[in-house]
Amino acid sequence: MELFEAIRKRRSCRKFMPDSIPPEDLGKILEAATWAPSPANNQPWEFIVVTSPDIKAKIADAAAATKTMLFEKSGWKWLERYNVDFIRECPVLIVVLGDPQKSGAHIFLGDSIPGYQHACAAAVQNMLLAACDLGLGSLWFTLFERCPVRRILKISTDLDPLSIICIGKPAAASSETPRTSFAEKTRYI
Amino acid sequence: MELFEAIRKRRSCRKFMPDSIPPEDLGKILEAATWAPSPANNQPWEFIVVTSPDIKAKIADAAAATKTMLFEKSGWKWLERYNVDFIRECPVLIVVLGDPQKSGAHIFLGDSIPGYQHACAAAVQNMLLAACDLGLGSLWFTLFERCPVRRILKISTDLDPLSIICIGKPAAASSETPRTSFAEKTRYI
Repeated sequence: MELFEAIRKRRSCRKFMPDSIPPEDLGKILEAATWAPSPANNQPWEFIVVTSPDIKAKIADAAAATKTMLFEKSGWKWLERYNVDFIRECPVLIVVLGDPQKSGAHIFLGDSIPGYQHACAAAVQNMLLAACDLGLGSLWFTLFERCPVRRILKISTDLDPLSIICIGKPAAASSETPRTSFAEKTRYI
Repeated sequence: MELFEAIRKRRSCRKFMPDSIPPEDLGKILEAATWAPSPANNQPWEFIVVTSPDIKAKIADAAAATKTMLFEKSGWKWLERYNVDFIRECPVLIVVLGDPQKSGAHIFLGDSIPGYQHACAAAVQNMLLAACDLGLGSLWFTLFERCPVRRILKISTDLDPLSIICIGKPAAASSETPRTSFAEKTRYI
């Protein structure tokens, strides 16, 4: 698929078929991640590929609890309706872990721009585009708390679980979400 | 260009020709940014396109001062040698601003995962891939302090300057930086 087509066609998918993902497709998606740029090319990412129904169910339960707590704190109606069962239903989760020590020289600035997280987010975007190219649906899920996810996946304290990517064959077409034109978001000097 | 080719061919470019970028190419790059995913599709990005030689010089001077300070703090030899003149020389800088209020429900978690920054980083990755597709070189520059950049560009306090993207025709081929295979970075459960 052409790059611009993939960028334009990528959608957030929340309804997946149970069909498993061929290992070669999974490999292409993970390899795409590793070609993202990072501070001083320190590649601050690691991945956990979750296909175990038991582990997926535990993560889904933890996310549902987080969602309920967030609804109570925010009062946002859409959170009450938001169903996270896609975490249980999709055939593969890719959990992206970042290494906070790998932010390059920026760690000496002491400000709040975490370079390792930026690099991991770029790696995620590569994965979402790669999934789209392969005809797969994907979702960049972030509505989780790190403590329970860390416990369920036995993640060491020196790594940060940053994102959970759901991947699978889409069970339905996702509608395009609108965008504000760049012209309204850009100034020129 | 095919998606996987763009992902694989993207390089960090630090030597640019002075030739200006056609406005339609710049438009394609900025539009690509806006198709990145974001929490609840809140599109937390804004852009400043800098072509003014005077403003570029001011940003380059500020980055050089930051670099010197970081070398003194870190003692990292490569920082002493690192020449940021490409900021002055490249025809276009795209400064990416993020809105910290647009992190979705995550703002109620009070943890350190800034969703608006993740979305802006995904938008940056789209821009780098788009530049590659158009035969342009690019650099994701983050070695700056926000205070001076904010002052030079008159950025309001409610927006966060997160990244500076240098774009232009490459003056030399950039060599490929090696990657650790995903196989060494992935566990399966």
